[in-house]
Amino acid sequence: MHEAKILSADHASKPLRIDSVRLQRRLSELAGIGAIEGGGCARLALTDEDKAGRDLVCRWMRELGLSIVIDAIGNVVGTRAGRRTGPAVMAGSHIDTVRTGGRFDGNLGVLAGLEVIETLNDAGIETEQPLAVAFFTNEEGSRFAPDMMGSLVFTGALPLETALQTQGIDGSRVDENLARIGYAGNAPVPATAPHAYIELHIEQGPVLDHEGIDIGVVESVQGISWTEIEITGVSNHAGTTPMSLRCDAGWVAGSIITFVRELAEELGGSQVATVGRIEFFPNLINVVPNRAVLTVDLRNTDENTLRKAESRLTTHIDALRDAEKVQITTRRLARFEPVPFALEMTALVERHARAQGLSTRRMPSGAGHDAQMLAAVCPAGMIFVPSVDGISHNVREFTHPHQIESGANVQLTLHFEQAGATQPAGVQK
Amino acid sequence: MHEAKILSADHASKPLRIDSVRLQRRLSELAGIGAIEGGGCARLALTDEDKAGRDLVCRWMRELGLSIVIDAIGNVVGTRAGRRTGPAVMAGSHIDTVRTGGRFDGNLGVLAGLEVIETLNDAGIETEQPLAVAFFTNEEGSRFAPDMMGSLVFTGALPLETALQTQGIDGSRVDENLARIGYAGNAPVPATAPHAYIELHIEQGPVLDHEGIDIGVVESVQGISWTEIEITGVSNHAGTTPMSLRCDAGWVAGSIITFVRELAEELGGSQVATVGRIEFFPNLINVVPNRAVLTVDLRNTDENTLRKAESRLTTHIDALRDAEKVQITTRRLARFEPVPFALEMTALVERHARAQGLSTRRMPSGAGHDAQMLAAVCPAGMIFVPSVDGISHNVREFTHPHQIESGANVQLTLHFEQAGATQPAGVQK
Repeated sequence: MHEAKILSADHASKPLRIDSVRLQRRLSELAGIGAIEGGGCARLALTDEDKAGRDLVCRWMRELGLSIVIDAIGNVVGTRAGRRTGPAVMAGSHIDTVRTGGRFDGNLGVLAGLEVIETLNDAGIETEQPLAVAFFTNEEGSRFAPDMMGSLVFTGALPLETALQTQGIDGSRVDENLARIGYAGNAPVPATAPHAYIELHIEQGPVLDHEGIDIGVVESVQGISWTEIEITGVSNHAGTTPMSLRCDAGWVAGSIITFVRELAEELGGSQVATVGRIEFFPNLINVVPNRAVLTVDLRNTDENTLRKAESRLTTHIDALRDAEKVQITTRRLARFEPVPFALEMTALVERHARAQGLSTRRMPSGAGHDAQMLAAVCPAGMIFVPSVDGISHNVREFTHPHQIESGANVQLTLHFEQAGATQPAGVQK
Repeated sequence: MHEAKILSADHASKPLRIDSVRLQRRLSELAGIGAIEGGGCARLALTDEDKAGRDLVCRWMRELGLSIVIDAIGNVVGTRAGRRTGPAVMAGSHIDTVRTGGRFDGNLGVLAGLEVIETLNDAGIETEQPLAVAFFTNEEGSRFAPDMMGSLVFTGALPLETALQTQGIDGSRVDENLARIGYAGNAPVPATAPHAYIELHIEQGPVLDHEGIDIGVVESVQGISWTEIEITGVSNHAGTTPMSLRCDAGWVAGSIITFVRELAEELGGSQVATVGRIEFFPNLINVVPNRAVLTVDLRNTDENTLRKAESRLTTHIDALRDAEKVQITTRRLARFEPVPFALEMTALVERHARAQGLSTRRMPSGAGHDAQMLAAVCPAGMIFVPSVDGISHNVREFTHPHQIESGANVQLTLHFEQAGATQPAGVQK
């Protein structure tokens, strides 16, 4: 029903589809910039590699006839005019990567946006609303904190000056680097809100791959609670100190690790809990640790449940403090409430995927994405395609070409409907 | 009854006692060599600081009239002749320290031995058996592995050549260093076994201090089982990976930490269990660890119980391997069976302490000591004095002067009995 079909002499009704080979070629060419062993990419934000990637994508934008606007934080938006002026239907993501990144994370959403536009160009299809493809600066946050910096500034959630003065892990600042690579643009931020925003992205988790599903219909981005826990006990000889006289910071850390697993299993649903980082001091085989530092990452799509998880962790920590006679301090490293995507966008993604005969699954995003920032200013949604074995932020990150093709085709017909396509002669909807 | 008393004009019967001030002065002077901030010592084995410490102790030995013998691994034995020839009643310990060591660990046993001899010299007391004071090379093992190297070679438990060719943490060898500092001696090893061996040492644990006891009567040295456990799981995004699809090496490590605590509490008695060292990879807040390495230190005075502890740990590891679908490999880093001290030596220590009105407690040694090597070749025993707060291998290591005095006086009267003292004119036993 909402499917675009092109009439031709050969067959009465051929659905409009993207060119998978062309999209794969662009993915490969972009992946060649900052390429690292194993097939991955290292294009940290605002480095020379990032500049080379940006230059390539801008060249493609120009070749497709898009008008390019660069804003003061270096976000790049390429726009294809519509019959009407006004806010564009925007596709977007990012092209910066982590240090040992894959070739799909971020890049896919941007290049699929270009592919949709080239498909429409080739078919001579105009839209009522303008269509835009955006890539946002420093989504990964690997060089400059916070992550999602470009979309935060784009939507007004982070002041431009704060972002520009951010110092990176190498000591240099965002503004210096923007100027150096020639992407300190003139367009004002916060920007005018798009008409709608859609982001095609790899899942970066194992669910779709594990269940054999084509398309993830992203309902929300999980809320995130990051806490650093520091335990101070007493360092003692592992042989001479009876168990009853220990104030063992290491054991307390171990107890927190096992507790958060039980917590996640008990709360169920989308609740996940991870201890990813730990350090013991003095970290010797025969010394009871006098200090342990570990991090707890809690995520849930439901804010109330996330708060419950945080509260139970606090109760457990209080009990450990008393039981082991240690000092425990906690430091909040990050806290984001869950972001629900607009219901009409979720429904739209689901409808277009099913119309193409693709299997779907509603799911949260466990990772943060630019789309969650855009959701504050316009209807926003996400399309997930499977990550083989759930591997991401890793050179082995992989999504099969036919899965990428499916995701891009969902984006195509969705844009076609949202932007109000007008068929040229010989094409009927 | 077995107390040495000196007759004098003033009072009919004054017990023979060491000079606490003189012993403290020697402890301080030796502590000045390799002194580090906070009042501690850094005299790693066979360094220039160790040489300076050795030279000082040898000077004191000569001043006391002892004949000095240095063996091929650098052990130094100073002997005071008896009325008879033959094996000596030996006091001993070590003067090397860990990198951030205290001033009592090891040094006390050697300098108390000298103090006993000086006390006998001053009182003009001769003994039937010779008396000797020994310090053994590289007890700590901080620079060269294994620890207790000197006493291992002295008793024939480690071949001399193996010890000499040991490479240290700085890449240099034991033999080079012995030659460099002038302590590659000529006396053959294994040495002739002493008549008996007694080692006065700080407890290095909190038990005596916690219970307010003067003297620890050491019945045995705990058996030690050191295992390194390496867990290999799958690295995944902490947000996008459902709990049910994780192979979390970090969680497995946490489960081992809490398990060994439960194990020690369940087995009770002298059983202790410690996870002192841990590392996660990639050790990032938002990444499920794909690798974790940790160590487990298990100790017990009873070999059968220690084996039971090892076996239960293995069973737990096997269960974790299956439950979390991870690979787990274990590597034995050290394994020593418990060493019981001769019953007559334990009884002797207890009897002499009580005869001086000191409170005693029978206990195991949780740390390894040269005495456990000597126990294989002669009756050996240990006298423990309290460590304030159980702190050792730390610049804050401390034992009160009156506690040290008590320990040295137990050693004095014990030697007096064991070596068969003969009173000079004016002294009666």
